[in-house]
Amino acid sequence: MRRLRLGMVGGGQGAFIGGVHRMAARLDGQWELVAGALSSDPQRARASGLELGLSEDRIYSSYRDMAAKEAARPDGIDAVAIVTPNHMHAAPAIAFLEAGIHVICDKPLASTPEDGAAIAKAVQASNRHFILTHNYSGYPLIRQAREMVRAGLLGDIRMVQVEYAQDWLTEETSNKQADWRTDPAKSGAGGAIGDIGTHAFHLAGFVTSLTATQLSAELDSFVPGRRVDDNAMVMLRYAGGAKGALWASQVAVGQENALRLRVYGSKASIVWQQEDPNQMQFTRFGEPTQTMTRGGAGSWEAAAHATRIPPGHPEGYLEGFATLYSDAAHLIRHSDDGAPLPEHCILPNVQDGLAGMRFIAACLESAGAQGAWVSCD
Amino acid sequence: MRRLRLGMVGGGQGAFIGGVHRMAARLDGQWELVAGALSSDPQRARASGLELGLSEDRIYSSYRDMAAKEAARPDGIDAVAIVTPNHMHAAPAIAFLEAGIHVICDKPLASTPEDGAAIAKAVQASNRHFILTHNYSGYPLIRQAREMVRAGLLGDIRMVQVEYAQDWLTEETSNKQADWRTDPAKSGAGGAIGDIGTHAFHLAGFVTSLTATQLSAELDSFVPGRRVDDNAMVMLRYAGGAKGALWASQVAVGQENALRLRVYGSKASIVWQQEDPNQMQFTRFGEPTQTMTRGGAGSWEAAAHATRIPPGHPEGYLEGFATLYSDAAHLIRHSDDGAPLPEHCILPNVQDGLAGMRFIAACLESAGAQGAWVSCD
Amino acid sequence: MRRLRLGMVGGGQGAFIGGVHRMAARLDGQWELVAGALSSDPQRARASGLELGLSEDRIYSSYRDMAAKEAARPDGIDAVAIVTPNHMHAAPAIAFLEAGIHVICDKPLASTPEDGAAIAKAVQASNRHFILTHNYSGYPLIRQAREMVRAGLLGDIRMVQVEYAQDWLTEETSNKQADWRTDPAKSGAGGAIGDIGTHAFHLAGFVTSLTATQLSAELDSFVPGRRVDDNAMVMLRYAGGAKGALWASQVAVGQENALRLRVYGSKASIVWQQEDPNQMQFTRFGEPTQTMTRGGAGSWEAAAHATRIPPGHPEGYLEGFATLYSDAAHLIRHSDDGAPLPEHCILPNVQDGLAGMRFIAACLESAGAQGAWVSCD
Amino acid sequence: MRRLRLGMVGGGQGAFIGGVHRMAARLDGQWELVAGALSSDPQRARASGLELGLSEDRIYSSYRDMAAKEAARPDGIDAVAIVTPNHMHAAPAIAFLEAGIHVICDKPLASTPEDGAAIAKAVQASNRHFILTHNYSGYPLIRQAREMVRAGLLGDIRMVQVEYAQDWLTEETSNKQADWRTDPAKSGAGGAIGDIGTHAFHLAGFVTSLTATQLSAELDSFVPGRRVDDNAMVMLRYAGGAKGALWASQVAVGQENALRLRVYGSKASIVWQQEDPNQMQFTRFGEPTQTMTRGGAGSWEAAAHATRIPPGHPEGYLEGFATLYSDAAHLIRHSDDGAPLPEHCILPNVQDGLAGMRFIAACLESAGAQGAWVSCD
Repeated sequence: MRRLRLGMVGGGQGAFIGGVHRMAARLDGQWELVAGALSSDPQRARASGLELGLSEDRIYSSYRDMAAKEAARPDGIDAVAIVTPNHMHAAPAIAFLEAGIHVICDKPLASTPEDGAAIAKAVQASNRHFILTHNYSGYPLIRQAREMVRAGLLGDIRMVQVEYAQDWLTEETSNKQADWRTDPAKSGAGGAIGDIGTHAFHLAGFVTSLTATQLSAELDSFVPGRRVDDNAMVMLRYAGGAKGALWASQVAVGQENALRLRVYGSKASIVWQQEDPNQMQFTRFGEPTQTMTRGGAGSWEAAAHATRIPPGHPEGYLEGFATLYSDAAHLIRHSDDGAPLPEHCILPNVQDGLAGMRFIAACLESAGAQGAWVSCD
Repeated sequence: MRRLRLGMVGGGQGAFIGGVHRMAARLDGQWELVAGALSSDPQRARASGLELGLSEDRIYSSYRDMAAKEAARPDGIDAVAIVTPNHMHAAPAIAFLEAGIHVICDKPLASTPEDGAAIAKAVQASNRHFILTHNYSGYPLIRQAREMVRAGLLGDIRMVQVEYAQDWLTEETSNKQADWRTDPAKSGAGGAIGDIGTHAFHLAGFVTSLTATQLSAELDSFVPGRRVDDNAMVMLRYAGGAKGALWASQVAVGQENALRLRVYGSKASIVWQQEDPNQMQFTRFGEPTQTMTRGGAGSWEAAAHATRIPPGHPEGYLEGFATLYSDAAHLIRHSDDGAPLPEHCILPNVQDGLAGMRFIAACLESAGAQGAWVSCD
Repeated sequence: MRRLRLGMVGGGQGAFIGGVHRMAARLDGQWELVAGALSSDPQRARASGLELGLSEDRIYSSYRDMAAKEAARPDGIDAVAIVTPNHMHAAPAIAFLEAGIHVICDKPLASTPEDGAAIAKAVQASNRHFILTHNYSGYPLIRQAREMVRAGLLGDIRMVQVEYAQDWLTEETSNKQADWRTDPAKSGAGGAIGDIGTHAFHLAGFVTSLTATQLSAELDSFVPGRRVDDNAMVMLRYAGGAKGALWASQVAVGQENALRLRVYGSKASIVWQQEDPNQMQFTRFGEPTQTMTRGGAGSWEAAAHATRIPPGHPEGYLEGFATLYSDAAHLIRHSDDGAPLPEHCILPNVQDGLAGMRFIAACLESAGAQGAWVSCD
Repeated sequence: MRRLRLGMVGGGQGAFIGGVHRMAARLDGQWELVAGALSSDPQRARASGLELGLSEDRIYSSYRDMAAKEAARPDGIDAVAIVTPNHMHAAPAIAFLEAGIHVICDKPLASTPEDGAAIAKAVQASNRHFILTHNYSGYPLIRQAREMVRAGLLGDIRMVQVEYAQDWLTEETSNKQADWRTDPAKSGAGGAIGDIGTHAFHLAGFVTSLTATQLSAELDSFVPGRRVDDNAMVMLRYAGGAKGALWASQVAVGQENALRLRVYGSKASIVWQQEDPNQMQFTRFGEPTQTMTRGGAGSWEAAAHATRIPPGHPEGYLEGFATLYSDAAHLIRHSDDGAPLPEHCILPNVQDGLAGMRFIAACLESAGAQGAWVSCD
């Protein structure tokens, strides 16, 4: 079984998320990085490519060039990972889709609704896969939680509490990561709501399989001079009557990546925290709370699909991310080579990306209208 | 030093909170229960009184009778504890105040704004103390947290997350406690927001010393047929620019009395949970999180005032409640006998009760107006 | 129902554990403190007694005097609480037993085996109760754990891990509490093993209902000049084949009163920690761990007997201690007045005290013999 | 920079730890698996090799053959990973060392002291590296803890509590993993002490930099018919006066891989748990406990060396294991190519393996001599 060939746009020296994608792609041995337009600066592109062991002829300084040349090679890349800042997602995504190459794209989908729509149109026009790395959906217990909800164990969902709190933007900050994320021209008009709020929003929908129909939002920029929100409170109404509260903050002192999900149904509840992802609390009404562990007693097939090692040996962020890459490999082998598709192979796609864009837009609209409930579906 | 003499209205056999008040009053040896109108049913009143060791002549079946007779005795009660359902707070409170007797009253203040206002007027007209048992403010680390905020350790408060989640009303339930709490005629128009939401609201204000000026609320009654809210999401705006999110639920499966407070400032944050009240997380921005324990290393005088035993030996709900009774004793000895008033003697009063009434009313108003931001100060 | 009359020996101004006994006695309203030999210094005895509201004629400066006079009064004390340092337990205990008065005595039983034996003989000769305040056995979930083991839920017990770690003697320390506890003439030859090791040893036996038959110990005095052990590792063999590991330390930096018990059987296990006493982990082999809460879903009658308020509202150290006082009241009312004895009324007695004395002696013997296994039953 | 070439002995279809080594080797992109004697069964060896993408000519069914042929190739393997059961470590390790190939070997070193000594002799005779995968030493916070101890932050170490508890052998069990681990001919005479006790023993020594000089042990086989220990209590004496308690169990119901380390010094303590490895408690005497996170505020260079992603995004078991592989790559590049050796590159070696063998032997000797203290250094 050959490894799939991966290209990468962005992720050169000094970048952050590109390295994460590369580790995730390597972990399960399904992918090999063979090409890259790692930087728009030709020198940095070359140095970065050599450091990663790419052949000189597959180090590009233009993603357009790369799309064209890789599409023409018999051993061209199967998929490209796009790991640039948000405003640089749409153009390369469309270029590779049009070149017949699958796309794995970092989130959020784009920096503007227009860009998002253009990507969706390109996906539609191609018959290629578009995978959006809402990586937290790759955690085994999140997969299990989703199945537990779908199996009806929680009864009717009533209340969803989801939050993603960080503190790295508590003060005025300047560095590569902070700069583009707080620049509306690069990140889009949403700050915390775009960068981490969309993760929280997606996770809640992923686990509950519910569609948020309306929201009411209050956005703040607590740090003087900040041009995007750094703290957001959002109330959600889901189809079917469930309610949600979402909090995203980048000024929550003491929080690192505190993504936490709590789902309360008429029969049971689940509680999960990203910083301690190998366990989940499950409580049936009237019974003691159970701690379910990743792969431990009573764990589900959907979690087993996304796990590598026995319970009690923690898997983390990179493993969850790697599951998206492995699922992507299964999906591509299935569509390109007719390989059987394993059950429980679930991937966020362009529709999830569009939902995230609507979420951002609705938050801005509601916050601008004194918290009016606005549609987000 | 004589024990103060306490009377009680409500709290007869089968009641819940009356027993709590009695244990709280006993713990520190400052009070002695000597009189009671424990039930409006004379037989139950008598049986309850005898069980508690009251003299026959101080067992009443009418609080009016009790107010009059106790006021006339040379050894009459110093204070009365009112532990009836909400709609039965105002009349006895006013009667005892008018009889010149201090009042310790369970929360919320009343079942209607009119009743609340009448109590406040009676307090004003008397020169007696009115203490509202927002008992969570008696926890030592809550007292310390308040002082830490006031000392500026957290910087400017930006975001308050407070929640009080229970699950005992997850299904349709009928028993003495549930019945009156879900009957608007007895509890008032608020359900969860009145019963536990006011606790959360008070706690946030107590610790931050901030005044909430506006709120936006979404109320639900998830259990079919329920006449009051059983789940409430509230967004708050505080004077000075801080924001708050408050969640009160009585249908949160797996939660017992999960009152949790998180306060994020520009310099530091604190996190505290009522179910594990002997520790608190404190994080200065850029430093590791510290776990402060009740009475442990680095603890404050305000906590010491409210604590009885060394760190590592947990104090709980009854001790926090008892602190209100002991502080009440200090206050009464101070005003009645000129005894010195210890520092750190802080008690919720009728103003806090009125703020709670405004909170309930504003939640109902906002929820009825599609979440419009309405004033609550 | 009249309150029982309590006397106290020791516990004057500046003492620690006497105040704990008084709060414990007050909480449930079963006892009234009416007499005391609170100090051997007459002035301090008088000042302490007045502060506690005792009548002048029942403030004694000699416990012998008190035993004689109280025995002679028609309204004499029902029981005496002995809360002096260890070397001062035997003489007053024997005096009150001989005067026909029940004894509630702080632990350990005595400072020497000879004293312990003398107390036991006096108990035997009287028909009075002797209650030793191994107070941790009063925690509701500890009561429940004991019943769960007895009901066979854990199968055959295999391994017990019990530890009691503190840090207050990490450095050379001088204060009232430290001084007598590190003086072999007052505390007995055991330091940490006597003061807190006996608590751990008792708790393990209480919950498992197993008898330790042999032990092997390693004792250290890490602080230069200390005359008693401040750190002890002990291996235990129980009748029936279970094994135990016990650790007691007063130099474990960062630990306040970390008494922790873990019991592993062939079918299930339980884990409980004194600093967070309102929950207990219970795991059946092959099933997810359950968190049982005090009074919560699935809780047992034995816990309910020892609990006062609903789950989620924490009870703590004083409540557990108070349960011993309330159980003592039940026991005394039963034997003296023929009142019915509630089920689940369980109290540590002089036999437990003797077992603790043998534990201390065996630790010293084994440690002096290079860890040889020695008998402790 | 070329990837290093890795071979593997053992780890064919159905094996467990081989897959872990492969993921660990892949994660950081420093290694490429190019050859294997994955099974002694030629068919399984071939099928396993093809599945892993090995060239047919580098799939071997004999490790001797592989050692000879790989040594002869210009592109032969740089190192071999030995992932067979314990009794099959020595022969291949010696063969590859003699062929001039670096060895990465799973733990414990061997199934007999003789085999262990033979390996050590072969290491000595070669100038090749021998790395023993005590993988828990690769956790970032463990690296940091070691440096904190070495920097004197804890003062003099007094007490070490280390335990490794599992429950998978609670009942009689038969499967590939259980069978060889409970067969003395394959695992060696130690059961739990060899399989997981050596991990705990190594971890304690790694973090404290102390040498255990004597131990006293009590071993049990709780499951009827089991031929090796499944529960072990060990007391340790370290050079310099520190004491240790070690517990290893495979019958501790409810425990998955509960490796936990607590180190108490005269100035401070640390507490760390493998199942939640991204945080560590650090307490200076007289100060609040701090929670140090992997890469968070106040983290050390030694942890940064072993970490990949920002704090709050958990790394786990595979990342810790991968750090050993990356450190091994650094070491080999340094010795073979003269590349600079990064600071903080620390690897368990054959001396650690011999110490583990002495630990096992001493446990057996002491347990056979009624817990006598025996030398283990």
